[in-house]
Amino acid sequence: MPRKLTYFNINGLAEPIRYILHYTKQDFEDVRLEFGNWPDLKLKESLPFGQLPLYEEDGRVLCQSLAIAKYVARGTDLIPSDPWKQAQVESAVYSVLDYWKNVTPVIQEKDPAKQKELIEKIYSETIPYYFSRFSKLLKENGGYFSGKLSWGEFILLGIVEAGNLFFGTDLEKKYPAVEAIVEEIRNLPGVKDYIVARGPYNFEEIKARLNKQ
Amino acid sequence: MPRKLTYFNINGLAEPIRYILHYTKQDFEDVRLEFGNWPDLKLKESLPFGQLPLYEEDGRVLCQSLAIAKYVARGTDLIPSDPWKQAQVESAVYSVLDYWKNVTPVIQEKDPAKQKELIEKIYSETIPYYFSRFSKLLKENGGYFSGKLSWGEFILLGIVEAGNLFFGTDLEKKYPAVEAIVEEIRNLPGVKDYIVARGPYNFEEIKARLNKQ
Repeated sequence: MPRKLTYFNINGLAEPIRYILHYTKQDFEDVRLEFGNWPDLKLKESLPFGQLPLYEEDGRVLCQSLAIAKYVARGTDLIPSDPWKQAQVESAVYSVLDYWKNVTPVIQEKDPAKQKELIEKIYSETIPYYFSRFSKLLKENGGYFSGKLSWGEFILLGIVEAGNLFFGTDLEKKYPAVEAIVEEIRNLPGVKDYIVARGPYNFEEIKARLNKQ
Repeated sequence: MPRKLTYFNINGLAEPIRYILHYTKQDFEDVRLEFGNWPDLKLKESLPFGQLPLYEEDGRVLCQSLAIAKYVARGTDLIPSDPWKQAQVESAVYSVLDYWKNVTPVIQEKDPAKQKELIEKIYSETIPYYFSRFSKLLKENGGYFSGKLSWGEFILLGIVEAGNLFFGTDLEKKYPAVEAIVEEIRNLPGVKDYIVARGPYNFEEIKARLNKQ
């Protein structure tokens, strides 16, 4: 069953999918587009909603990062067997997505002065609001969203790291429960080796490439 | 198993949950807050991410409308048994949510002139972009997101109706595949009776109540 994941050469919304595939030992083709070549209009037009990542398997295509992440976790211990626990994980994932939907307009803002103002608001309001609640959820459920490791904590890690790359910091440091799960997943077999092999992402390099367009 | 759903007295993100509960014949307490009494700070503070709807069952609470909708659909024919089909439905639901995340800032905009401008953009760009793609997905999959009726089409109906209430129109009319599924669900046993019993929502009345605050 040849699997292929297409995204940019950045962490973003595809990184949790990559982590899950490496952790669960599923071979896949990790296709990484350079931003300088985007938008590839022919590819963009072929995507169901014009967006990456795209997952392909046996000639079938699936879009939407969170649907892909959950799909590749199927049949593993990353999906709780109990429906209530599944719902707890999904609920947490939607809240992680709510957080991220507050951050993406800031990343996309072109006016530097306005972006600076938006970043200040994210730091003073959005991050404390959401991260304190992620911490509370984790603490109340034994360090996880539903009592044990699931695909949901991989999504949290992915979104924490996507923010870290943009803000140039480690957002989890002030939130021990978030930091603990982030470190736990980074040190899982498969994930750890992948991170070493991949090396760090460089946002300045990505920005420079974008600005050259 | 006493079930309780708490939301405002409006359709919004809770209506697809109400539809699924009525269609699958699950009794529940349909608690509807009036906007004039919101924010109820004590209630808001008790919510995991400060947001409604909230679902309660056997003393346990679940937030996030889409997680709730899928949870109450569990064990019914509204969840596909095949994992790929489940993923197709979830992917479609995330895209419906993407559409809605474009609309909510317009609803929340306080400046009438700016709101008018944003509405024009929603009409000329956002709605045609997403609704044509929802139509394409439905047509390619036998009128549904994954070959047969699932919780995903209930979410689409809920979001279409939430938009209709705000824009004062029937957005589905220009998109026959969307209109067909909307009509199919509205005429399902349980759903049809509920709609009659509930009567129409009145957005002007809701706005007037909000403005009185």
